[in-house]
Amino acid sequence: MEEKVNVGIIGATGYAGVELLRLLLSHSKVKVAAISSKSYEGENIQDIYPNFREIFSSLLCDNDTVIDSSDIVFSSLPSGFSEPIASQCVDKGKKLIDLGADFRLKDEKDYKNWYNLEYNDKELHDDSVYSIPELHKDLLTGKSIIGNPGCYPTSICLGIAPILKNKLFDGDIIIDSKSGVTGAGRGLSITTHFPECNSNFSAYKIAQHRHTPEIEQTLSNIAGKKINVTFVPHLIPINRGILSTIYVKLKKCSGLLDVYKIYVDFYSDCKFVRVLPVGSSASIKNVKYSNYCDVSLHLDKINNRLIICSAIDNTVKGAAGQAIQNMNLMLGFDEDEGLNLIPPAF
Amino acid sequence: MEEKVNVGIIGATGYAGVELLRLLLSHSKVKVAAISSKSYEGENIQDIYPNFREIFSSLLCDNDTVIDSSDIVFSSLPSGFSEPIASQCVDKGKKLIDLGADFRLKDEKDYKNWYNLEYNDKELHDDSVYSIPELHKDLLTGKSIIGNPGCYPTSICLGIAPILKNKLFDGDIIIDSKSGVTGAGRGLSITTHFPECNSNFSAYKIAQHRHTPEIEQTLSNIAGKKINVTFVPHLIPINRGILSTIYVKLKKCSGLLDVYKIYVDFYSDCKFVRVLPVGSSASIKNVKYSNYCDVSLHLDKINNRLIICSAIDNTVKGAAGQAIQNMNLMLGFDEDEGLNLIPPAF
Amino acid sequence: MEEKVNVGIIGATGYAGVELLRLLLSHSKVKVAAISSKSYEGENIQDIYPNFREIFSSLLCDNDTVIDSSDIVFSSLPSGFSEPIASQCVDKGKKLIDLGADFRLKDEKDYKNWYNLEYNDKELHDDSVYSIPELHKDLLTGKSIIGNPGCYPTSICLGIAPILKNKLFDGDIIIDSKSGVTGAGRGLSITTHFPECNSNFSAYKIAQHRHTPEIEQTLSNIAGKKINVTFVPHLIPINRGILSTIYVKLKKCSGLLDVYKIYVDFYSDCKFVRVLPVGSSASIKNVKYSNYCDVSLHLDKINNRLIICSAIDNTVKGAAGQAIQNMNLMLGFDEDEGLNLIPPAF
Amino acid sequence: MEEKVNVGIIGATGYAGVELLRLLLSHSKVKVAAISSKSYEGENIQDIYPNFREIFSSLLCDNDTVIDSSDIVFSSLPSGFSEPIASQCVDKGKKLIDLGADFRLKDEKDYKNWYNLEYNDKELHDDSVYSIPELHKDLLTGKSIIGNPGCYPTSICLGIAPILKNKLFDGDIIIDSKSGVTGAGRGLSITTHFPECNSNFSAYKIAQHRHTPEIEQTLSNIAGKKINVTFVPHLIPINRGILSTIYVKLKKCSGLLDVYKIYVDFYSDCKFVRVLPVGSSASIKNVKYSNYCDVSLHLDKINNRLIICSAIDNTVKGAAGQAIQNMNLMLGFDEDEGLNLIPPAF
Repeated sequence: MEEKVNVGIIGATGYAGVELLRLLLSHSKVKVAAISSKSYEGENIQDIYPNFREIFSSLLCDNDTVIDSSDIVFSSLPSGFSEPIASQCVDKGKKLIDLGADFRLKDEKDYKNWYNLEYNDKELHDDSVYSIPELHKDLLTGKSIIGNPGCYPTSICLGIAPILKNKLFDGDIIIDSKSGVTGAGRGLSITTHFPECNSNFSAYKIAQHRHTPEIEQTLSNIAGKKINVTFVPHLIPINRGILSTIYVKLKKCSGLLDVYKIYVDFYSDCKFVRVLPVGSSASIKNVKYSNYCDVSLHLDKINNRLIICSAIDNTVKGAAGQAIQNMNLMLGFDEDEGLNLIPPAF
Repeated sequence: MEEKVNVGIIGATGYAGVELLRLLLSHSKVKVAAISSKSYEGENIQDIYPNFREIFSSLLCDNDTVIDSSDIVFSSLPSGFSEPIASQCVDKGKKLIDLGADFRLKDEKDYKNWYNLEYNDKELHDDSVYSIPELHKDLLTGKSIIGNPGCYPTSICLGIAPILKNKLFDGDIIIDSKSGVTGAGRGLSITTHFPECNSNFSAYKIAQHRHTPEIEQTLSNIAGKKINVTFVPHLIPINRGILSTIYVKLKKCSGLLDVYKIYVDFYSDCKFVRVLPVGSSASIKNVKYSNYCDVSLHLDKINNRLIICSAIDNTVKGAAGQAIQNMNLMLGFDEDEGLNLIPPAF
Repeated sequence: MEEKVNVGIIGATGYAGVELLRLLLSHSKVKVAAISSKSYEGENIQDIYPNFREIFSSLLCDNDTVIDSSDIVFSSLPSGFSEPIASQCVDKGKKLIDLGADFRLKDEKDYKNWYNLEYNDKELHDDSVYSIPELHKDLLTGKSIIGNPGCYPTSICLGIAPILKNKLFDGDIIIDSKSGVTGAGRGLSITTHFPECNSNFSAYKIAQHRHTPEIEQTLSNIAGKKINVTFVPHLIPINRGILSTIYVKLKKCSGLLDVYKIYVDFYSDCKFVRVLPVGSSASIKNVKYSNYCDVSLHLDKINNRLIICSAIDNTVKGAAGQAIQNMNLMLGFDEDEGLNLIPPAF
Repeated sequence: MEEKVNVGIIGATGYAGVELLRLLLSHSKVKVAAISSKSYEGENIQDIYPNFREIFSSLLCDNDTVIDSSDIVFSSLPSGFSEPIASQCVDKGKKLIDLGADFRLKDEKDYKNWYNLEYNDKELHDDSVYSIPELHKDLLTGKSIIGNPGCYPTSICLGIAPILKNKLFDGDIIIDSKSGVTGAGRGLSITTHFPECNSNFSAYKIAQHRHTPEIEQTLSNIAGKKINVTFVPHLIPINRGILSTIYVKLKKCSGLLDVYKIYVDFYSDCKFVRVLPVGSSASIKNVKYSNYCDVSLHLDKINNRLIICSAIDNTVKGAAGQAIQNMNLMLGFDEDEGLNLIPPAF
């Protein structure tokens, strides 16, 4: 019998962490060796998340124990907390997949500007790789630290990459994203208190969201020149899912079908990106609880503006699922191992 | 004792009609004389809407009875059905406030293109006036037919009018709107079937929504030149409310405070538009069940793009409330008579 | 011009307090003189609740200022905090309507058992009166402290009072209540964190809820003998409303119509209780944002069990609205002054 | 390589049918050979349910084709439509698992009374078996027609079986159930129109729901005597899940721990029933998207009444999942094959 790879989760009780746990428990090639939580250390995960009763029982331990017990460490922590974890992992020969923001931005200036934090060990960052697998899988070889992308950037970059790659655009890029409430995390706040959040809808961190430099970094790399975007996130009163509506002026009067073909071609090897037939519109319902990113294309002919809708489950393709996809590629597993999740109809 | 004005509602069982009924019943200067419904003729409104039990009892009659019983007729019907009503009203010396689309578009070509219908009696349309009161109240004098605006156009035009009026913008206008499900009406459809709609979010009629020509007509009038917009509506799984996020490139590098002052000045006489202090963001929660339109202003400095959030209750300021506001102005009542609705905190 | 009565709210930023504020602002005979909040003292209510922008502006002050500025003081505080307020009010000749639990239970033992607190000034309690107006309005005369009922007891006691009064029941009373999330207050908790609460449904404090002795006290008084109930509350993922489903074995085989007549008779003078025609079922939708209590009657013939559904808005009839109703009666105003709220259709 | 069993779904576009499809596609021992739909015959399932895009493509065919292509036929049709399907299956040597009501009631009188329909081929019914696997798995041997239980009866019978089996109860059984909206099916109705359903809560078919005879049949069999129940279902504005709150008077003063032990013992071999530790309360959140039934036990000591909360996902354990569980047992597969679904945390 093939031996399973030991994996561990640091920050297992946050929403990304617990979704990771759920998905890893159904992954045929790994074994969840240890999980940690600062807030709930010493408690059983079942007492925090009773959905795991009679399925998975484990005490939440400290981070060191996770690192020592695992070949692959997933870290899902607030900004600034994963860098020291990474350092330990490298020292001990473990691989790290960081679901936080510490290994996403190449330019430390961006990290300082947007997160008000510094890189303490620059070498670590040089040795890390940022990976939306569909766009960066070739860069994974030989790396031991992966910066797993943010949820908004995943939906946005997958939605717009083919346009930038093929230099079809002209002028500004405007991104109007909408996210379910798990995107705000499990920490309590008045904004996410049920009666304040339910039946409401509003924008937040308008043109000031921390995912902006990450989006621009990825898009600039693809375009081969500096790209600025206007990015406005909104909160939808649902649990899961992101829909990004992206507005791009086309350079020339391409027909919608031509654009569609470029997308289909661009994603021909990418199981998890579904380019919807012209006439369909991406919706959160069709991707939730799955690792898919649905992309639909629409044309405002009068203004020659392409409108792209991109939908993901923020906690799967936008976090835990993509982290597993990165692990699969890193370890040479099938890319979709453990990720063959059919989105439920409702 | 002052005599009350008799008002009637044609199409009283649709969502706009029934909200109109609720608001008119609390209006001190009018009396609801008759209400009609094609689908429920002969039934008591209480049997369709049991919220009215022991409050208001009335059989739903036919349209002729409503017209004959009323001084002011409100009509809330599908496209094409209000024009003949208007004709009757004019013949009988009654005034009509149409909540449908028949008297919104000045150019018949737009009506043909977007609604696939014709104007049968052009004189009627010449005698009618389209009115978002804050923008058009001076035009109401002497008119006997009012085209009450659509919900999306109300939120959008109020959000962007000061910019256009003051010629501060440069280039394209992109409008990303989100509406609660009552905007889709009371007619059954799979899209608005609870399990399909709940926990979902998606765009629809992308760059193809019928409110587009109405938006462009109003904005062009204000700007004094032809304005094209890219307009994308989305469906939010909540009952009430619209939030429009509007993206406009500023002509020159105005500071946000300057723009704010222009808005405050523009709306200084307008009780129902609240320009939020810089730093606040308009949200549906703060306007629902009221006639307010909350407008907030945000700047993407790097791209010199102004982002405007505009929130209304689609069934009040976007339909029934605005219709009453128009009636008040037409009849010389206080503009806010019957509309002093404090939005509940939750 | 008639002078208005000065009213004040202690604890104005909780959900009951802020709903009280909204309703009192539309009450023609009172003026909101002062409002207080421990958590937000010194801030403007508009900054906590932006729905009040351009409608009502007031700094949140301390409790003493509220008492000194008001003829009638409403207090909406956690258990144990209203008794000292009451003492001050009595000393200064002010009347107090307490929306908390301090003046609901006549037997101090109940208060000790369920709230783990004591009555420090027994005389105060002797001088106070507990009032669901439909059941207790005769007791209000000459009292200066009113214990405003809890939300669950209101829906339950109104639902079952006619049965007890007429001694139609036999055996046990089982009450299965369901409440919207505002019932849990504005304090943050993981239970009311949006992603944990949304799409969920569960019971809580099963047969252990603090409203149990209040329910039993009221029912026992009506029945003229000690009544025990089994009471189980549940949390519905909506903002407002309570539906109580009450199960009572009938003493003899009464027809449903007979029971219906008894209810109609019992509530003949009660504007705010609507006994629904046989065949209808009470639902939260038809009472929300209003002071109505809808009661529907159903018979399980085989088991000769009466099933009563009773629906209220927990924040209006279950809290703020009923407090105003009590004030109106206390001051000799029309019982429905400020409470003519038509429940919206959606 | 082991050959897979061919399965087919009749009525694949209803909510139970489509959930069955999703689950069967992940079942390692079966192959979905054909699916049918009356309303959508000739269309691709992907066009009705775009969540299946790039995952499963199949035209919806007619029922005969499904029967001919399959070893096991699942039928999910309105009452009265499965009997003729069953007849065909038997003739052609196929096995049928009926998710409708045609093979649930042993006594034709019940079927007539509650469904207003007759059994046309009584032999078919004699050859069929009704199976909640935890209670009836021994009866499955040699049967070729399985009547898959209703959603409410599943949650209720699993919740109360140990009490009846052990004759611990005395007197009446009251069942207050609450279901998500998918329980009402995919057919459009004003009750399930989003704006009417959202933010609402109410009971329906009070003491008149068709699942009543099915519940009583199962409970009577377990108890060994005729059991009558009072059963009241309610609609929760969520998509999935049922919570049943069951009230039973205990014969003698058993301690809660004793009852708990009896439950644990009763379900010791049942993977899919989780008896929660005393002090926990079953909630929909912890079972949704899974085949689990969570049961929690609570005691109202004063009235010596046991309160049982039982939670399932109505579309999995209450329909599609249980049908697969029955198939697994019928075919000798592991009971949990294809059903190892970990309920997500949110």
